[in-house]
Amino acid sequence: MTQYSQSARSKVKRVPKRGHYDKETVYSILDAGYLCHVGFTMGEQPFVIPTLYGRSGNKLYLHGAASSRMLRQTQQGIPICLTVTHVDGLVLARSAFHHSMNYRSVVVFGKARVVEEGEKEHALYILSEQIIKGRWDEARKPNRKEMNATTVLAIEIDEASAKIRQGPPADDREDYDLDIWAGVIPIKPQIGDPEPDPALRAGIETPPSVKEFMR
Amino acid sequence: MTQYSQSARSKVKRVPKRGHYDKETVYSILDAGYLCHVGFTMGEQPFVIPTLYGRSGNKLYLHGAASSRMLRQTQQGIPICLTVTHVDGLVLARSAFHHSMNYRSVVVFGKARVVEEGEKEHALYILSEQIIKGRWDEARKPNRKEMNATTVLAIEIDEASAKIRQGPPADDREDYDLDIWAGVIPIKPQIGDPEPDPALRAGIETPPSVKEFMR
Repeated sequence: MTQYSQSARSKVKRVPKRGHYDKETVYSILDAGYLCHVGFTMGEQPFVIPTLYGRSGNKLYLHGAASSRMLRQTQQGIPICLTVTHVDGLVLARSAFHHSMNYRSVVVFGKARVVEEGEKEHALYILSEQIIKGRWDEARKPNRKEMNATTVLAIEIDEASAKIRQGPPADDREDYDLDIWAGVIPIKPQIGDPEPDPALRAGIETPPSVKEFMR
Repeated sequence: MTQYSQSARSKVKRVPKRGHYDKETVYSILDAGYLCHVGFTMGEQPFVIPTLYGRSGNKLYLHGAASSRMLRQTQQGIPICLTVTHVDGLVLARSAFHHSMNYRSVVVFGKARVVEEGEKEHALYILSEQIIKGRWDEARKPNRKEMNATTVLAIEIDEASAKIRQGPPADDREDYDLDIWAGVIPIKPQIGDPEPDPALRAGIETPPSVKEFMR
């Protein structure tokens, strides 16, 4: 398995056994999501902005309006940090101290560059597929004006670390005798029934992308 | 309604009509969650770390191991940014360009201070209640050693902005005639059945906090 290097910035310090640096693990966590939190700094002030992403190989794409502060700042080639977190459950231990969360997270370090014309439509396709596969081919494609109004950034993943906690609580040995319930409450995203646009023309059926997504 | 001031850093620039600055809206989004992404800067490098939080009035509490990089850095009184995002649905428009997400997010700006002895147990109680109400009273309370191993930070919310998108897609007028499905796929957290710790002593029933959380 190819590993990312572990530098001071990317090494998991707290509970190091939860840290993973192989690309397979990092990619699997990235591929299970579509929402990230991007951190960048302006002056002394950090900003953390939620946004959508798509992965292609060792590269992540972000997009947004050309006027967005996040995109204007991060395209300057400044260092950014991009984090994806999946909550898998609440871990209730016997002791308050050992309460925890089951989760899978990835922290990515890299710099962003603006995606040029030739790569742009491909990047938007990757973003779209990350969120809901097959939708790109169903929707009206972006026209020239829409393409111009959209900035796409690419971030080569320089370093990344994954952190994973799964399984039951881990209490102190003597606490297992206590008369206190312990266990995990699983949490995952629930996909509801699709709600057709009230303005949808009659006779248009739920498309394959949505049906596939519901499974 | 009390409003946060709108400065250059907190003003919602993209789609300003989605921006909200009143405390009621900001608090309601914070109160609907327990996981945030905290951004801080070391040198030129931003970090974005997922962590749990609790709100008490205009203050947020974070906690972790005394040795955590996030806590060691942020307690220096450096500016931080703390973001909470709830995904409510995928918005599928007729055009690729108008695809969007329904969400509620809050971006908080402030500085962290270390919570001293007198306030520390209260802060941990607030954090615990934010995640699962009533659990604090069921669990074994932290002992002296555990309290010493835990750092709690308080962040007074200096500025905050909420951003909300809800409702059906908004397509270009001419696209409503297209033969393309449009609508929303709702998403929300799904709480699974509690999984008792395999090491749980026989005869311990699911506690009130968990039963209440399941509703």
